[in-house]
Amino acid sequence: MTAKTANRQIILKSRPKGMPDQSNFQIREIQVPQPKDDEVLIRSLYLTVDPYMRGRMNDAPSYIEPFQLNQPPTGGVVGKVVESKSNKFKPGDIVTGTLEWSDYSVAKSKDLQKLDPSLAPISTALGVLGMPGLTAYFGLLDMGQPKAGDTVVVSGAAGAVGMLVGQIAKIKGCRVVGIAGADDKVDYLLKDLKFDAAINYKSPKFAEELKKACPKGVDVYFDNVGGDITDAVMPLINKFARIVVCGQISMYNLEKPDIGPRHFRLILVRSATVRGFLIFDYADRYPEGIRQMAQWIKEGKIKYRETITEGLENTPKAFIGLFKGENIGKQIVKIAD
Amino acid sequence: MTAKTANRQIILKSRPKGMPDQSNFQIREIQVPQPKDDEVLIRSLYLTVDPYMRGRMNDAPSYIEPFQLNQPPTGGVVGKVVESKSNKFKPGDIVTGTLEWSDYSVAKSKDLQKLDPSLAPISTALGVLGMPGLTAYFGLLDMGQPKAGDTVVVSGAAGAVGMLVGQIAKIKGCRVVGIAGADDKVDYLLKDLKFDAAINYKSPKFAEELKKACPKGVDVYFDNVGGDITDAVMPLINKFARIVVCGQISMYNLEKPDIGPRHFRLILVRSATVRGFLIFDYADRYPEGIRQMAQWIKEGKIKYRETITEGLENTPKAFIGLFKGENIGKQIVKIAD
Repeated sequence: MTAKTANRQIILKSRPKGMPDQSNFQIREIQVPQPKDDEVLIRSLYLTVDPYMRGRMNDAPSYIEPFQLNQPPTGGVVGKVVESKSNKFKPGDIVTGTLEWSDYSVAKSKDLQKLDPSLAPISTALGVLGMPGLTAYFGLLDMGQPKAGDTVVVSGAAGAVGMLVGQIAKIKGCRVVGIAGADDKVDYLLKDLKFDAAINYKSPKFAEELKKACPKGVDVYFDNVGGDITDAVMPLINKFARIVVCGQISMYNLEKPDIGPRHFRLILVRSATVRGFLIFDYADRYPEGIRQMAQWIKEGKIKYRETITEGLENTPKAFIGLFKGENIGKQIVKIAD
Repeated sequence: MTAKTANRQIILKSRPKGMPDQSNFQIREIQVPQPKDDEVLIRSLYLTVDPYMRGRMNDAPSYIEPFQLNQPPTGGVVGKVVESKSNKFKPGDIVTGTLEWSDYSVAKSKDLQKLDPSLAPISTALGVLGMPGLTAYFGLLDMGQPKAGDTVVVSGAAGAVGMLVGQIAKIKGCRVVGIAGADDKVDYLLKDLKFDAAINYKSPKFAEELKKACPKGVDVYFDNVGGDITDAVMPLINKFARIVVCGQISMYNLEKPDIGPRHFRLILVRSATVRGFLIFDYADRYPEGIRQMAQWIKEGKIKYRETITEGLENTPKAFIGLFKGENIGKQIVKIAD
């Protein structure tokens, strides 16, 4: 572990216009903060970058406050307790919480959860056993209501959430069709995760291939992407289809609202349901989700994968990479051993 | 009642391209059909024209079979039994069912329901106590789930369904905002039906007026229209908003799929639910809906209005008028006394 002499932070220097780039971020060194009563000083070990954070970089009202300029963005972090003024934590404890993009953070004890490193690799608290896992679990099962024999299509299928959605749908006896943006991702979905079909949306015959992969239409569409990809899925939906809007990554960097085919008539004639959801609204059911995901991992029914970028200083690069399709599975930044 | 010598039919002569016109229809005279065993000969008294029928005039697969060329379209009819080979009906009985656009029809007894003319004017079986009433009832209450204090916006608010949706929402204690396309309709919604606000979408300041009419945002949007009108409502939706897609009349005459702003991101960040529905899927609950609507009418809580066009020969005109906003309330064609 690095000596407690320097505390680097990544700050949001300017609000991105369109696709974020390195100039929107800056690294700075400040003093290591001091914990007060009931607070804990944490050495960051892993942090997560997620597509939804792009929305918080805009100065626009949304379901969650915008990130402040010249301050570090915050998000899920796994770290080790260095100093504790709380009787709930002691030095050496591994914890997770919503913390800053920095080497060290101080947090109130109530905002941290202790992790048991003997149960699973600690980085999984940011992925399969954290928000992405919970998002896949509740989004698919509660919002999507898949039944055995249903065809489930998932976009962003090789991403942190999508790869779990597809595997949960397989557990539930569905035909699973994944959409991803690279041939190695498609291979991974087919060979490692045993999706029934996987399609590269960059293929010139994408819509045709998708239709062929869904001979009985689409009962559940789990949408992480939106835009053209969703436009190709919508005409295939069956009567009473459920469309779960989990992410719209294709939209996040647009400077103007996007235009596309109107879907309401299709929603009408197919008696379909389109639901947007935020995982925070399932907070009271997190324990159920984590318990089940952990069980499935233990039984070998769910595999997970991480793309790990080394070094706090590379956090902006890892974040920007999300929008370029550079990750397979959960994108994580490793800050220290 | 006309003597049983001639039977006029309106047939679909050609499939409309875009907006239907008179040339798509033709009147012809054929023989009065003869009922067989368990069949009934009916003299049509009233028939209904509805926007959804436009979809059936296309030769495209949908939730319901296309109308056949050179055959009469079918739809809701109220008529009088002229001759009966069924022990369930006798001459003089008033019945309703899905019958042809013609002076006389033959139907199987199982496809007819008897009406009690002492309970309500018989034309209401095509409106407030028929499909439009049931559509408003189940669409708003079951799909829209309005709660007291919610803001409910309804498009096509002066139409057969919309005017009932708004009144039911008022009964449930909601703030009701109607959108219509003419000042006399707006006046009717405000003065006669006591909507809290009503807006003419043809106003150059429509979006602004709508926003002002919904100071607390929109909790339920009951959409009969789609297109630009829906685009103005969507940015106003609140967290957990319910959008009921009942009709998309602005789309029915388009020759190409329409383009508009994408709504999925908004659905996501507001955790909204968009549901399309067809009233046929509520068939097992029709008695509940009709009972409640009849009760509300009796109590003076629901008013209804009909636009009656005289003469079978004017059926195409009445149908085409639906897309020109010519009706207030239920558009009905009166065929005989």
